[in-house]
Amino acid sequence: MAVKIGLLGFGTVASGIPFLLKENGEKIRAAAKDKIEIAKILVKDDDEKNRLLAAGNDYHFVTDVDAIIKDPDISIVVELMGRIEPARTFIEAALAAGKHVVSANKDLLAVHGAELLAVAKEHRAALYYEAAVAGGIPILRTLANSLTSDKITRILGVLNGTSNFMMTQMVDEGWTYEAALAKAQELGYAESDPTNDVEGIDAAYKAVLLSQFGFGMTIDFDQVLHQGISTITPDDVAVAQELGYVIKLVGDIRETPSGIAAEVSPTFLPKEHPLASVNGVMNAVFVESIGIGESMYYGPGAGQKPTATSVVADIIRIARRLHDGNVGKSFNEFVRETQIAHPSDVKSAYYFAISTPDKRGQLLRLAQIFNSEAISFGQVLQQRANGDTARVVIITHSLSRTQLSNVLEKLEEVADFEVLNTFKVLGE
Amino acid sequence: MAVKIGLLGFGTVASGIPFLLKENGEKIRAAAKDKIEIAKILVKDDDEKNRLLAAGNDYHFVTDVDAIIKDPDISIVVELMGRIEPARTFIEAALAAGKHVVSANKDLLAVHGAELLAVAKEHRAALYYEAAVAGGIPILRTLANSLTSDKITRILGVLNGTSNFMMTQMVDEGWTYEAALAKAQELGYAESDPTNDVEGIDAAYKAVLLSQFGFGMTIDFDQVLHQGISTITPDDVAVAQELGYVIKLVGDIRETPSGIAAEVSPTFLPKEHPLASVNGVMNAVFVESIGIGESMYYGPGAGQKPTATSVVADIIRIARRLHDGNVGKSFNEFVRETQIAHPSDVKSAYYFAISTPDKRGQLLRLAQIFNSEAISFGQVLQQRANGDTARVVIITHSLSRTQLSNVLEKLEEVADFEVLNTFKVLGE
Repeated sequence: MAVKIGLLGFGTVASGIPFLLKENGEKIRAAAKDKIEIAKILVKDDDEKNRLLAAGNDYHFVTDVDAIIKDPDISIVVELMGRIEPARTFIEAALAAGKHVVSANKDLLAVHGAELLAVAKEHRAALYYEAAVAGGIPILRTLANSLTSDKITRILGVLNGTSNFMMTQMVDEGWTYEAALAKAQELGYAESDPTNDVEGIDAAYKAVLLSQFGFGMTIDFDQVLHQGISTITPDDVAVAQELGYVIKLVGDIRETPSGIAAEVSPTFLPKEHPLASVNGVMNAVFVESIGIGESMYYGPGAGQKPTATSVVADIIRIARRLHDGNVGKSFNEFVRETQIAHPSDVKSAYYFAISTPDKRGQLLRLAQIFNSEAISFGQVLQQRANGDTARVVIITHSLSRTQLSNVLEKLEEVADFEVLNTFKVLGE
Repeated sequence: MAVKIGLLGFGTVASGIPFLLKENGEKIRAAAKDKIEIAKILVKDDDEKNRLLAAGNDYHFVTDVDAIIKDPDISIVVELMGRIEPARTFIEAALAAGKHVVSANKDLLAVHGAELLAVAKEHRAALYYEAAVAGGIPILRTLANSLTSDKITRILGVLNGTSNFMMTQMVDEGWTYEAALAKAQELGYAESDPTNDVEGIDAAYKAVLLSQFGFGMTIDFDQVLHQGISTITPDDVAVAQELGYVIKLVGDIRETPSGIAAEVSPTFLPKEHPLASVNGVMNAVFVESIGIGESMYYGPGAGQKPTATSVVADIIRIARRLHDGNVGKSFNEFVRETQIAHPSDVKSAYYFAISTPDKRGQLLRLAQIFNSEAISFGQVLQQRANGDTARVVIITHSLSRTQLSNVLEKLEEVADFEVLNTFKVLGE
């Protein structure tokens, strides 16, 4: 008897599923202890259905979601539509009907995960979503199954392939942000409205999920600070290289004495840091913990086959649990009371690029302002820029978010100083 | 009610277990659904017992293994003695007594794994050994649980920390093999007899286990070709760098049309390859597959806490399965009939360093010999070495093991040519 699945949507990722079921059928069947069969596929309308049939897709396409949700033969519903609605309503209905659900929808799970998981629990249904974070990298299941013995102190991740592709061009080729974006759009890596990718929003959704699996805490999406890559200039990139760093958009979740802090921001990574050599559209999750110490999980963050591989891994787990009669287990069982860190506990070194009139005493004044907030300098570089404007680059020692906002406020008050950019620096 | 465990041995790794049970107790208990308690610890003799007690270790030390194996309250036996005997006998007895067993003993599992797994199966006992490959990296469970949906085509791994530390010194600092070995011994990374580490034997044991989890095939240890790092010279390292490569000791298991091939050998990795930046004592496993494409799992290959973290992860899984009443599942369920590749199917590019008298026509003769085996050149470098001896470096295009042994035989027949080194080259 086969396990029958219903797909919601038949876009890029979904069409990778038949590939794996065909090319890896024997191994999948042995692992699931059952054949996995695509019973029905929901598409938008008859036009899409006819187009897909004409293109040789030999499946039972339906245009009404009830045809899947009310089908007693279907035990697993696979949602690959993306966005919030109607995916949310469909998943909720499927769970309420006792179907197990696999999804790759990070936006939805980051924002409405808690309520969906509650529905799943109520109906003893599984809701798995390995593909929602870092596409092909099996990071969520690894956190849930293997790193249970370890206490994680920090997770750093290159979590967005589009922005990482762009940063790689900006670092390796010296391209501007605009040129890198145009190339990413040309190659289909970036959408015409790239906001979600380049402003760190997509990575922030993933940070929400990683904080649940890694720290047992559900942080609201709004509590993840996010800063994008659009303000990064070739000057920033060049000075980073000169000082031994690579700039990347990095998701950062860590536990402090007062709670956890999550943010996504352009980050100076020391060249030797394992994340520094994660290039192009690849993703990686770097985990710091009291047991293993440092470990990293690297792979493609998106793409048809990698994402479908994670989706099928979830399907196999559910099918196997159905076979073994123990399907109740949550994907993530690690749950603690959520505590958000106080800004004074969230500490990092920072890079400041400040423009100032090229006149005597300016560096002294800058030093006084930083000193008044008890911030000390690690490295300082004064560069003459255009005409009579100098550019001062400072890498500080560790300071807290409280100190950071205080010093930025003070710098703002001095008409002479313009803070061009402030980025986090790792390893200082 | 707590799950009681018995430790066989209380060396470096074993003493990392109490650290995790204490520092991460809450999370471990939640995951296992039970408290995990160290009930008894087997030590060699009364001297060791008294020494450990005097050092403040407050455990129930025993000197007779039966005190653990015959204790009905102990459900999990953790073997951390290393070597083959008496570990093998003890594990077998524990399994036969219905105890579940966790081990980090790669030598034992690589050589006698099949018989131990048979005993485990017969007694419906679990035998888990995540720590046996790449210490802290959760690679075996990831292969068994997450990569079930994917078909793996090749696994490449930096699997031995000692030799990787040495190679890193040889590459980054230009040290000789002898200097790197002396340093590794001074730091305690290498034993006084370093054979297992530097000759690729330790990595070959791990390749046996990876071939089971990744390919479902049990390859005999003797079928893993292994070549060590002791013959690598500063000349080899320098020319590799000049040509854009880094030399590392790499375990390589891949599936060919006729079966799988496993070997451990010094390998030229292109500088951009993710494994090329795995330095020092760190390990990494790089997986090529039809779904994900390329993924890598990076972390410490040894050490007290990393290894103990993997051991405790296994203990948690067993404790949880005991709680859930489904403890029968094998660690690795992927089993196919073992097929060993025919040498003519195992293809790679190769590096040849050949010494030859510095006289006219030698390169032509070399080219003729390679051409007679249908081997073509990718890059050729002729370097004048000492006096009237020239050193010719060749990077070939892809050739099979059959072609390799044929050409080496022909080169041997020509008194003029001395093959100094032959190493595999990736990415050509």
